[in-house]
Amino acid sequence: MGLERVLTSVSPTASSGRYTELSSLLELVKGILLDHVAEADASNAARQSGQRNGAISHSQAAALLPPEIVSQRLSLNLTDKPQGKDGLLELTDRILRLSINTWDHGFMHKLYSGTNPVGVISELILAILNTNSHVYTVSPALSVIEKQTGRALANMFGLRETYSGGITQPGGSASNFNSVLIARHQAMPFIKETGISGQQLVMFTSVDSHYSLEKAAQMSGIGSQGVCKIPTDAEGRMSVPALRRSILDASDQGKHPFYVNATAGTTVRGAYDPIDEIADVCQEFGLWLHVDGSLGGSAIFTRRQSWRLKGSERADSITINPHKMLSVPISCSFLLGRDLRQFRSSNSIDAGYLFHEDAPLAAATNDADDTYDLAEFTPQCGRKGDALKLALGWVYYGRIGYERYVDNAFDMAAYLAALIKNHPRMEIAAVPQSVQVCFYYMPSRMTDKHDMAAKHNTAITAYISEGLPSKGFMVDYAPGPVGKFLRVVTNGTTTKETLNSMVNEIDEIGQSFIK
Amino acid sequence: MGLERVLTSVSPTASSGRYTELSSLLELVKGILLDHVAEADASNAARQSGQRNGAISHSQAAALLPPEIVSQRLSLNLTDKPQGKDGLLELTDRILRLSINTWDHGFMHKLYSGTNPVGVISELILAILNTNSHVYTVSPALSVIEKQTGRALANMFGLRETYSGGITQPGGSASNFNSVLIARHQAMPFIKETGISGQQLVMFTSVDSHYSLEKAAQMSGIGSQGVCKIPTDAEGRMSVPALRRSILDASDQGKHPFYVNATAGTTVRGAYDPIDEIADVCQEFGLWLHVDGSLGGSAIFTRRQSWRLKGSERADSITINPHKMLSVPISCSFLLGRDLRQFRSSNSIDAGYLFHEDAPLAAATNDADDTYDLAEFTPQCGRKGDALKLALGWVYYGRIGYERYVDNAFDMAAYLAALIKNHPRMEIAAVPQSVQVCFYYMPSRMTDKHDMAAKHNTAITAYISEGLPSKGFMVDYAPGPVGKFLRVVTNGTTTKETLNSMVNEIDEIGQSFIK
Repeated sequence: MGLERVLTSVSPTASSGRYTELSSLLELVKGILLDHVAEADASNAARQSGQRNGAISHSQAAALLPPEIVSQRLSLNLTDKPQGKDGLLELTDRILRLSINTWDHGFMHKLYSGTNPVGVISELILAILNTNSHVYTVSPALSVIEKQTGRALANMFGLRETYSGGITQPGGSASNFNSVLIARHQAMPFIKETGISGQQLVMFTSVDSHYSLEKAAQMSGIGSQGVCKIPTDAEGRMSVPALRRSILDASDQGKHPFYVNATAGTTVRGAYDPIDEIADVCQEFGLWLHVDGSLGGSAIFTRRQSWRLKGSERADSITINPHKMLSVPISCSFLLGRDLRQFRSSNSIDAGYLFHEDAPLAAATNDADDTYDLAEFTPQCGRKGDALKLALGWVYYGRIGYERYVDNAFDMAAYLAALIKNHPRMEIAAVPQSVQVCFYYMPSRMTDKHDMAAKHNTAITAYISEGLPSKGFMVDYAPGPVGKFLRVVTNGTTTKETLNSMVNEIDEIGQSFIK
Repeated sequence: MGLERVLTSVSPTASSGRYTELSSLLELVKGILLDHVAEADASNAARQSGQRNGAISHSQAAALLPPEIVSQRLSLNLTDKPQGKDGLLELTDRILRLSINTWDHGFMHKLYSGTNPVGVISELILAILNTNSHVYTVSPALSVIEKQTGRALANMFGLRETYSGGITQPGGSASNFNSVLIARHQAMPFIKETGISGQQLVMFTSVDSHYSLEKAAQMSGIGSQGVCKIPTDAEGRMSVPALRRSILDASDQGKHPFYVNATAGTTVRGAYDPIDEIADVCQEFGLWLHVDGSLGGSAIFTRRQSWRLKGSERADSITINPHKMLSVPISCSFLLGRDLRQFRSSNSIDAGYLFHEDAPLAAATNDADDTYDLAEFTPQCGRKGDALKLALGWVYYGRIGYERYVDNAFDMAAYLAALIKNHPRMEIAAVPQSVQVCFYYMPSRMTDKHDMAAKHNTAITAYISEGLPSKGFMVDYAPGPVGKFLRVVTNGTTTKETLNSMVNEIDEIGQSFIK
């Protein structure tokens, strides 16, 4: 009978209780979960029609509550006794009330937003499968999907060699960390065995790059001293001449440069480092080129923006987080590579209880050059099949669906930047590079008293950020030239009306601070 | 209006399309997802009533297909054009057919099994929330739940100091790795800044411990040479006298012992190291005591088995993976600690764009000793709220639900061990320690030709493992004293009938090999 499903012989009533239990629990919680989405839809719709939405959504209000209050209202009760369906439903309801509604367009606080309907479905499928994508035998379909999706992504970036591909990692920090490990292993393969003993490895990354690069150095035993932070230009892009000089300096000091990270979409300003020029330098000195495209790598999906990633086809490894700009559910991060054999030699370890060279299927799944036992490419053992989430959205919405999504994020950032520029009381703080808009509200200009001005600006920025949730918006802030500024991150669902409304709210809150 | 939900004003039809889209997609896939569970239920029911189930379930058949065939049957099509609902439904159906059904009791292959209905619901809630538990502001409810659940777990293990608690990590390997980083930082805090320069740090773990410990040494720059593997006794438990001698030897050689891992539930045999005696040694030499309870830590939930973890109340850190013995969905792993301030000093890094000391809520969420910005305790930045999955099952089933589940796994392992002992053609290969039963089928006894015997035994073991999926079972194998042996892992849903049936199938396949 083989793979044929014989569902005709499966009677739910005849089977033991899990089908029934799951079915009834789904019915139980479906309503309040869907209401969570409906509420955001309604809030968005109201905003589209010009209504003030502060009053119609609880979405962001939880952001204003201190942990003691949240804890009290949640009243999580981890006891001996089962609390059953009632306990489950009531707790779920309280969790939803006390969480931020990321489906609301007003959520522009971090580099991610709510997911989409297919995202939810993909997590549901993964939960039903509850499979571990460490070895092929227990996850045939998910392993194949991860291989093919990783390969498709790598190809889009121009990594098209025989062993080019990619694997998922639990977040951008993990992807960046693995890239450092792989590059370290390429440079000094003996370290895996002997450890570091004062080799003074040096990696290069811009001052605006994500903190995970420095953490990777700390964790891998290279240390913060082994991270050379290269200055950026006025747009937040790494200075290539400075990079070149720093590499020469490090070599002169007897240190060992081995790794350069080019950021595609910096955390605060969204800047793209000049990857192609950086690739020239890496080629000249024989250094590993990593592209941290956690945020901005998704621009590869759009014909209008992919030029920003020019040069990534020369990278050795690339991080891309579809859970950011593509709204795939958290977490979905890929580390792509020109040659996955390098990933494997860095990460593989003998474990006869997990990897079987003597299994009858071994020849088909595993050889000296390639394997479907994907744990061999990563620092992890057990792994969730996160690749499915990108693949399923790709199938449903198509690449052009993702393209429209990314294009909208870029368009809306440009629209917002224009609004700010034309606003009498707002001031662009950094030339917009991609999907972030950074600005001050009535910044102090006391250039002779920089510290006082910075304090003032940070205070008003924090005040506005804190005032926005009760108006249905969430916006974060970040350190800037004169104190902290507001940073808005647009996404695939952002609309002009949302931005207009937000600018008005910011102005109102800002005015109340000044008075 | 505050936190009151105003659902009366929310009309699904009036809102924009996501509610409708999600609702209709849920209806679309619900049937085939529930059928996946129903099929396993039916397969289990048939086995209970004595029927041969090979014919009624496709559950495990995909394990026999090489990647080329799986790839061909999946026909994943990542193209420009959207494939919409039909594409989504058809692909989902193919994925389910080509995946292992872990809900089937016949799946006893790895240290996890299918999840339960509440597990599925908890993933659905996380998908709807799509929140990032890195900082409190964007995940108030999930941050509080993670804090409380981590604290409750730590307390169960006897870690009850002011700053005792726990945080989730993306898997047991990640938890173990973080423990090594934290211990390294306690021993030599300057390494974060300067890197390792030949300090010859040494960590101690048994030869039977998980490979993630050695990988942690490789990744952290300590190197495999810095891992001292302590022999185990006949039951697979670390030899404490040997540990003591090794520490003294390392010190004599001018090396720096800093970390001991005691495994609670080894990967192959399920052995529990004598934690209390190991704690004595750690105390004597001032070493960090980590307990890797990825598998066996869940015994803390049962009054009958928790004695195995005696001494863990003296640990500095403990790994527990509720996604193993408790069937919480993959992945759910906690790293617990006696003093989370140590976690924070090891992992925190200055990132003004993420952590705000000047936010109005900062005083309530974040002080010098404690914080609700949980990313500060971990190597990651973005984090999924995995703690919810344990908490929700705990609320629904109660601690006694988890207790029954773990007790059943232990009871069924004992039952299977007795079956094997009494079977004329099967032989226990390692005295059962917890939920794994390791055995040979008609092992060769040519003690004068050990290699030939080992080859023979590995061949018959692999043959049986490969023959089982078409009978509805999946069982893994592992290296043993004379070639590889079969290793069955029982779980909370395993029944006697399933084990009886499996033993019969193994005998039949084994006989066909001999003939």
